[in-house]
Amino acid sequence: MKTHTEYLWFDTSERVEFINITRDIDHEIGRSGITDGLILVNPMHITAAVYVNDAESGLIHDYKEMLKKLVPQHPSGEDYRHNLTGEDNAYAHLWRTLMGHQVTMAVTDGRLDLGPWEQIYYAEFDGRRRKRVLVKIIGN
Amino acid sequence: MKTHTEYLWFDTSERVEFINITRDIDHEIGRSGITDGLILVNPMHITAAVYVNDAESGLIHDYKEMLKKLVPQHPSGEDYRHNLTGEDNAYAHLWRTLMGHQVTMAVTDGRLDLGPWEQIYYAEFDGRRRKRVLVKIIGN
Amino acid sequence: MKTHTEYLWFDTSERVEFINITRDIDHEIGRSGITDGLILVNPMHITAAVYVNDAESGLIHDYKEMLKKLVPQHPSGEDYRHNLTGEDNAYAHLWRTLMGHQVTMAVTDGRLDLGPWEQIYYAEFDGRRRKRVLVKIIGN
Repeated sequence: MKTHTEYLWFDTSERVEFINITRDIDHEIGRSGITDGLILVNPMHITAAVYVNDAESGLIHDYKEMLKKLVPQHPSGEDYRHNLTGEDNAYAHLWRTLMGHQVTMAVTDGRLDLGPWEQIYYAEFDGRRRKRVLVKIIGN
Repeated sequence: MKTHTEYLWFDTSERVEFINITRDIDHEIGRSGITDGLILVNPMHITAAVYVNDAESGLIHDYKEMLKKLVPQHPSGEDYRHNLTGEDNAYAHLWRTLMGHQVTMAVTDGRLDLGPWEQIYYAEFDGRRRKRVLVKIIGN
Repeated sequence: MKTHTEYLWFDTSERVEFINITRDIDHEIGRSGITDGLILVNPMHITAAVYVNDAESGLIHDYKEMLKKLVPQHPSGEDYRHNLTGEDNAYAHLWRTLMGHQVTMAVTDGRLDLGPWEQIYYAEFDGRRRKRVLVKIIGN
């Protein structure tokens, strides 16, 4: 069994930003030499998520609106308890959980085994600083 | 290390429908000859989810009500941005993310290693057409 | 390829309680002798979740408040359909899904490959009874 580990770095210009990383992930599969197995894509920071959905800008807008509605970034009245630590990113911790935070995908014939519209996104919720995404591939 | 890949097809009669696929998944484990490892169950379409919970019709009703309340299917007033593309399924993209979208389970002694009430469901949110679920098993 | 399977038992004194299990998981990796691979951490009961986030008590408070707001434990007026079975834990089934329910993490150099703040939590939503979390490690 072969394994391959890589850390991808991202640094967004916006605090909340969605980046399509499908090509980066496929590139790592190529580098690994693994043709059949599983690949874990896990953000190593706890205010970001990796998820799979459509590469459509309207949908990305809808994701942001959904998150803001369900978990306001800056609630009026009482604030999040986490923000009493001096942080102002409680919403980002909660959003990343609602988004599912990580994905495991299949590698078949040496590449991502994707349906017609599946794309892998890195969703940054507290950006403007460098953050890592762990990629671990295991298989034959 | 052995691997096994299969694509299960589903075609629902309802637009929103929940299907217990636990037997299908166990059947694939039997076919694989793998007795110890991991199994990924991932919908290849981005308006569906795979999740683990109880096979209880009341609970399935509660899931649907929760999703409709948190993310309305057809909001009055402003619509989802994604639906400006001509689609009317933005809710389905969002629901599948809230449901966790995919699961990885353990294979032990040649079958799914489940707790007493764990059942694997395929949750279709934009059905009435054929869709695939990828099953990838790796192990010994 | 090596595999290692263990069942961790938890028994909470509160009905809703969050437990940091990062050390337990790292201990299992040590026992497995596996230095490079993947580890699945999956609650075997359907009213609990495993998730990754910060070990900060304010944030844990915020998670509970978010869940209560999105899916009330004891709604006034109409109740959850699942509770007509005689149960009163429908909220717990739904919460565990919103929390993502399970995680798969990387094992590198014989331990959890974590970012600076990543901690693995067991979130019990219907406790005061013994429940199992499955740990399955595969790798070299």
